[in-house]
This record gives sequence, C-alpha cells and structure tokens, in this order.
Amino acid sequence: MRYPERLLKLVRALAVLPGVGPKTAQKLGLYLVMQKDAAQELLAALDAAQALHPCPICGNLAEDELCPICADEHRERNLVCVVESVGDLMAIERSGEYSGLYHVLGGALNPLEGIGPEQLNLGSFYKRLQPENPEALGAKVEEIILATSMTVEGEATAAYLADMLKERGIKATRLAYGLPVGGSLEYADEVTLARALENRRGFSE
Amino acid sequence: MRYPERLLKLVRALAVLPGVGPKTAQKLGLYLVMQKDAAQELLAALDAAQALHPCPICGNLAEDELCPICADEHRERNLVCVVESVGDLMAIERSGEYSGLYHVLGGALNPLEGIGPEQLNLGSFYKRLQPENPEALGAKVEEIILATSMTVEGEATAAYLADMLKERGIKATRLAYGLPVGGSLEYADEVTLARALENRRGFSE
Repeated sequence: MRYPERLLKLVRALAVLPGVGPKTAQKLGLYLVMQKDAAQELLAALDAAQALHPCPICGNLAEDELCPICADEHRERNLVCVVESVGDLMAIERSGEYSGLYHVLGGALNPLEGIGPEQLNLGSFYKRLQPENPEALGAKVEEIILATSMTVEGEATAAYLADMLKERGIKATRLAYGLPVGGSLEYADEVTLARALENRRGFSE
Repeated sequence: MRYPERLLKLVRALAVLPGVGPKTAQKLGLYLVMQKDAAQELLAALDAAQALHPCPICGNLAEDELCPICADEHRERNLVCVVESVGDLMAIERSGEYSGLYHVLGGALNPLEGIGPEQLNLGSFYKRLQPENPEALGAKVEEIILATSMTVEGEATAAYLADMLKERGIKATRLAYGLPVGGSLEYADEVTLARALENRRGFSE
C-alpha cells in the first residue's frame, strides 16, 4: 500500500519543525488526520498567527503596528535589553524583573554557519542609536544590557556589540554568570563554579 | 507584557498533540510564527489532509471512497487482519509479509478509560461478518488475524474478539510472541523469554 499522498505531505511539513524527527512527524501526522477537531483548531490558529509580524523597531512579535512593549508608554525608555530571540525575550519577561525596552537580534554571530553581523537584526538597532532618529533612544539611553546566551556564539555577539557601543560612548552590561537558583555545588561544572567564586558578593548587597 | 493572543492560541492548539508538552508547544509555536514558509507549507498540507477520511469498510485512511487496500482487487479477500490503529496497519504493510485485508479498531478495550466494545470500530466489523452483506467476507473468510498490541489492553481485545469469532465458527489467530529479531537473550525480559521457549519451533519449518 502506498501511503495517501496528502498524509505524506503533512508528515513532510511537520518533519521540518525543530525537535520533530521522522517518527514523531508520522505520529503527529496520523493524529492530525484522525482527530479532525484538533486539526481544525490548529488550522485556524495557524492561519490567524500568519498576521503576526516582527516589530519594525525592536524585532519582537507584533499584532498591531508596533509590538506591545514598544507601544507601552510605561516601559522605561532609557534601558534596552538585547536578546537573541523572541523566546529569550519572553523568558526575561516571565522573570518580572525588567521594565525597559528590548532589541531582538534573531540569532547570534556564528561564522561557521555563515551568520555574520549582516544576518542579524542590527540595521534597526543602529538606527535606534542615532540621535536624529525620532524613534531613537539617542542621548536618553543610559544602559544597554547584552543578554545574549552564555554560549560561545552568544559571548562573541555580546563582545562584538560591546566594542561597537564603547566606540559610541554608550554603557553596555552583561548578565551575571553564576550558579542557577536551586543548583547544587556538587553538580556544577568547573567553569560555572569558577565564575561564581570570581563574582562572589557581600551579604549587604 | 501579555503574549500576543494569536500566539497563545497557536501554542494551545499545538499542546493538544500527542507527546507535545507546554514547553515544546511554545517552541513550535514561536518557530511557526517566525518561519512563515514552514507555516505556509504546514497550513496547506493540513488543509489538504482534511479530505482524508476513514474507509467505511475497514476504518483505514481513504482519499477516495474506499481505502487503497479495500479497493485493491489483488489483495487476498479471505484474510482479515484486525489492528488497533492506522499506524499499526502501516507497520504491518512495511513488513511486506501480508497481502490480505484489514480492520482498524481505533483503539483497544480499556475499561479504566471508559473504552468498551461500543467505543471501537466494531459495527462495520460485525457487518463484514454477515454473509448477506454484499461487502461481507461472509463464508469466504478463512482466517482473522488478531494483531492488537501485546499489552494488557491489546490482549483483552484479542480475547474478546476471539470469543466472538469462535461463536460464529470463524478461525482466529494471534501474532507470535517471541524474541525480536536482533534481540539479545541477556536483555530479554523473563516473560518474553518464557513465551519464546514455549513457542520454539523445529528447523524444518
């Protein structure tokens, strides 16, 4: 028996998703073909989600012209947090500790995979740093937090941006290295433990 | 920041899929929102797959009126293999060892989850066993292979169907228990090993 062509197409479209291998794609495809309600719901949600687009200022997801953060008058406009992805932005939002603006790069520098500064969402970032731009942070910007990942690529991206910001006289900071909350010393890797010792702080802080 | 409503809806629709938890659903949702091409492909495939429906005779997936197996004149029509799902049917088809017809139950008996005989695709199975039905296997049927899973539920379902078929004087068989091909004796569980010993066979067979 040949599999139905429509099922094969669906399985191929699912196998493209991150973390979905051929076996999982087949399981999901069969489920979506058998469970019409779930498939209808996903169809409608997927169709509606097509209207989401990157915010022209920061690259976050936007339903309206600007994303809810850039459009929010109550966010601190002199603080910008640079992240790799919208997922990272959402993780910081969940922490509830940050009330400034964001800039989403859409990745990190990775020369081996051909991702240089041109492939990142940096054009609109430079534009935000120009004082004459009406949307610019201009002279108002006090600090730019480089919150790229603690990976080789994330560190390289942060170093690249820190150099560029230094030239323009803008203060740049980096997230703290250390032990995760709830983490056990016994299972921490040496590098993390060394950084946690190096960055130890007094109890008064 | 509230997440965009359209993203939340997409994530909820994805979290319903088997093996997809809330974290995976969020990752997939973000991916589909950022990668418009992949989302468009999935939308089109999902839409086309809506035309697939269960075959009215056997319950397999059908693009046309009947499924490709029921419609195929070259399949042996005196042999029926009863399986739990279309996925199981496809696994047997991949083995290339079977050229009869199928009947897809859509599950297995599971009283704890409220799945009784009424919840399975048995109505059309009984219909196939009636000699006066033009689509029936009727007197022609020689053997019904009960290929439900080797689980408690699958065994219960096979036993239930075997009783019913015995009453009607139809021969029922069950898949062989034994060691999987390439399996090592050392790591086989005791029950499987006991069954493999019990069902040992001569070299002439």
